[in-house]
Amino acid sequence: MELKVILLNITAGGKRIAILDDETAADLGVHSGDRVSVVHSRNAIIAIANISEDIPNNRIGLYEEISQALGVEDGALVDVQLAPMPESLTQVRAKLRGQRLREKDIINIVRDVVERHLSEEEISAFLTALNIHGLSMGESEAMSRAMIETGKTLSFGEAPILDKHSVGGIPGDKTSILVVPIIAAAGLTIPKTSSRSVTSPAGTADRVETLCPVNLTIEEIRETVNKTNGCLVWGGSLELAPADDLFIQIEHPLGIDPLLLPSIMSKKKAIGATHVAIDIPTGAGAKIKTMTEAYLLASDFVDLGKRLGLTVQCALTYGEQPLGCSIGPALEAREALAALMGESPPDLFDKATSLAGVLFEMVGIENGQRKAENILQSRRAEQKLREIIEAQGGNPKLMPEDIGVGDKTAKVTSSQSGRVLWISSESIAQIAREAGAPREKGAGVILKAKLGDIVKKDNALFEIYAERDSKLESALTLANSLQPVVLSRKAEERMILDQVPAKSFQDKPFIMER
Amino acid sequence: MELKVILLNITAGGKRIAILDDETAADLGVHSGDRVSVVHSRNAIIAIANISEDIPNNRIGLYEEISQALGVEDGALVDVQLAPMPESLTQVRAKLRGQRLREKDIINIVRDVVERHLSEEEISAFLTALNIHGLSMGESEAMSRAMIETGKTLSFGEAPILDKHSVGGIPGDKTSILVVPIIAAAGLTIPKTSSRSVTSPAGTADRVETLCPVNLTIEEIRETVNKTNGCLVWGGSLELAPADDLFIQIEHPLGIDPLLLPSIMSKKKAIGATHVAIDIPTGAGAKIKTMTEAYLLASDFVDLGKRLGLTVQCALTYGEQPLGCSIGPALEAREALAALMGESPPDLFDKATSLAGVLFEMVGIENGQRKAENILQSRRAEQKLREIIEAQGGNPKLMPEDIGVGDKTAKVTSSQSGRVLWISSESIAQIAREAGAPREKGAGVILKAKLGDIVKKDNALFEIYAERDSKLESALTLANSLQPVVLSRKAEERMILDQVPAKSFQDKPFIMER
Repeated sequence: MELKVILLNITAGGKRIAILDDETAADLGVHSGDRVSVVHSRNAIIAIANISEDIPNNRIGLYEEISQALGVEDGALVDVQLAPMPESLTQVRAKLRGQRLREKDIINIVRDVVERHLSEEEISAFLTALNIHGLSMGESEAMSRAMIETGKTLSFGEAPILDKHSVGGIPGDKTSILVVPIIAAAGLTIPKTSSRSVTSPAGTADRVETLCPVNLTIEEIRETVNKTNGCLVWGGSLELAPADDLFIQIEHPLGIDPLLLPSIMSKKKAIGATHVAIDIPTGAGAKIKTMTEAYLLASDFVDLGKRLGLTVQCALTYGEQPLGCSIGPALEAREALAALMGESPPDLFDKATSLAGVLFEMVGIENGQRKAENILQSRRAEQKLREIIEAQGGNPKLMPEDIGVGDKTAKVTSSQSGRVLWISSESIAQIAREAGAPREKGAGVILKAKLGDIVKKDNALFEIYAERDSKLESALTLANSLQPVVLSRKAEERMILDQVPAKSFQDKPFIMER
Repeated sequence: MELKVILLNITAGGKRIAILDDETAADLGVHSGDRVSVVHSRNAIIAIANISEDIPNNRIGLYEEISQALGVEDGALVDVQLAPMPESLTQVRAKLRGQRLREKDIINIVRDVVERHLSEEEISAFLTALNIHGLSMGESEAMSRAMIETGKTLSFGEAPILDKHSVGGIPGDKTSILVVPIIAAAGLTIPKTSSRSVTSPAGTADRVETLCPVNLTIEEIRETVNKTNGCLVWGGSLELAPADDLFIQIEHPLGIDPLLLPSIMSKKKAIGATHVAIDIPTGAGAKIKTMTEAYLLASDFVDLGKRLGLTVQCALTYGEQPLGCSIGPALEAREALAALMGESPPDLFDKATSLAGVLFEMVGIENGQRKAENILQSRRAEQKLREIIEAQGGNPKLMPEDIGVGDKTAKVTSSQSGRVLWISSESIAQIAREAGAPREKGAGVILKAKLGDIVKKDNALFEIYAERDSKLESALTLANSLQPVVLSRKAEERMILDQVPAKSFQDKPFIMER
């Protein structure tokens, strides 16, 4: 059917949506959500139809994504037909019924996600079904390959190319800022891409951004790595696995994460890594709650790595409290830089050198942690980080105190004396966010006591940093209501952990940092 | 944060969507899909945020749904904040994890569906989880009540109020056009609402529309029922269960139907029915494949009815072929009217009188089917249908031949002689749709042979009716490729039913008529 174009002069966030009135839609046999082919001279496109009352009869409303792809002007004539259901939707429906998908089915689906032939509702149903039914290892492999195939890939020449990743969930985890320069200082290549925060107070890209630019082009990354053996950049704009970025947008409000394994592994493969150390923080307050769960996940990582031609080594790490003392982009960057200059909290020192050690041993270097400690203590890692900062366009002479932090501060003190029995990572993260992190880079929290420490009445438990008085105030209010640090003279004094039924039907904020 | 309104001058199909640029969204801590509160003078609304690059900084793009509800003009200032996650989303997430929901959770969810506080992706995930996990009877009851509570309800005074429903899937099923006047002629009240076709060649509303108007207001329905005891109207615009209409829009492309029971029962309850006969066509070519499946579904209907205060009686009916001989709105209306005038195919006669008989016996009338046959054969049912046609605004003197059917016809003949062993209902429905049904009301198929009939070589198997040559041609091409009528001299001559693995990964077109 020939229809006249109405340009809507607005994008639909990348979606390819065409709007028809209900009469025209009925004439075409099109229901809301059906696909239509829109043809203009020699250009053809598949769009998802929305039905709306305020498009006149025999017209078609086109968002900019489509009008630009077709090269049509307002008032142009286009031929519109009901398009057959894409094969990928048949395969999505099969997964809804619980069927296993074949590699080529998954590639079809992922391609149609990237090309926007599947609607958000269909992608949402697919992800929900994956979350409930789970993925077989074969499906995870196919999903990883499909995500790599539909994105860009990099290559840094000769193997080994090292990488490090944490499944996340631990506030204050600035380990990468230490591991990358330790590895690079040993002459090994480690092109590290990181994410920004989604639900946490800081992602590694947010932290590093207070040291130097992180939004580099692929060419700039290549130069940095050629010069220094490493980099610490934001991976978000590199289009390494664009399908995953679309999946995450839908998963986030739903609080599901069915593609944890392929999401991480596809990005590692796309960056050209050959040896990857995966950090799995484990503990009641972490994403992974029990050792059993952590061992299962770890063996899946190793297995999937093998299938993709990657050597993977997982480290199950202690995840019962935030790492180090500072939480928030600038505060964490300060702590990391200080640690490289010789002043590290013991947990950060041990975690960074252990993980660097795991990487060293993966490529055949003995006594890995010992070697990492040497590089760190001799300040060769500090020197290397400064080289990386300079190569990425920052000031190599930066001192911790040069990194600006919020000048509005407030201490939260203890109402009793006792030993620190429990620190809620989740509550600390919420307080840091309430103070303005990660958007306000100087905002966050500094812990003054950690697990096992003895605190006297009126001593500080933690200090809140903010850039604005209003944020400081609301973070303080939240801190007083959440009480994230629990003290007790003896463990037995607080016997009730929780009650069932729950006092309120409350959902945990979902942590999807990768 | 104060933002300046940009009116987008287009509706979003009822959705409440606000568009922010990424900087502003980041400042507000808003991710795509998050909810924001938009406040203007004393009006406040919750919208779902989309992030788009082409909205300038510190502006907010509003679709008409929101600008009208708020009463804002282009350039007005509104206060925008990140809104907390609605309670219903917490409950959707709980269902994604497989939890049972309580009545108040389900009411929350349904209310937020109707008020558009849940996004399409979230509703899609919810429906997918329901489809995989299934609903408990308690959840079905709560869902029915919630759908009733969020819609309009009717009342026709004194009980009993009768109703009849088919779960569908049988092409040519015009039973309601006979049952309603039989019941009404006996002095009982039967206010029948029907749907239009979604994926079939005709819904009852499409069929009746060739006899008289079906798009009546609630007041007009009330008058028709007061005058004649019955009606045959389209239920789609009455807002009896608006949540269900939104659910169906999302379920249709996904090919899922998790809410079959509450969807049907909520509409029956909303129309004020007290006694409902449910037709469950059963057979390999029907929606419900086996007697076991049919018995399970039937007892669920009875159980759910009891919980909602409805008396329900299910009839499992033979569903191996189309009902009667004609398929397509006008052809079926012709056949139904002729049946009421004394000329009925035997299967239609038996099904209509059996179902009317079930209804009679439900309200204490003995020998129900006998009574129905009497009313039908004495042409009192014909007289009653003519009263209903007149009350709904049609011509009461209408004759079958007055109902216009397509004047382009083609016969499909048999290439061999033999007995009809199999008729694919699905293929017949596809051919009728290809010929133009239901949009072109005169299009469809007339079967010239039914199961068990003996056919000679070159005899007609069926005839295709269309309003346009091009449609006739493509229906004929489809008929030749699908071969919907299978002949054999003996049953044993065709031993292979299907092959595994399937020759192509093909999805059945989904039939969601209710």
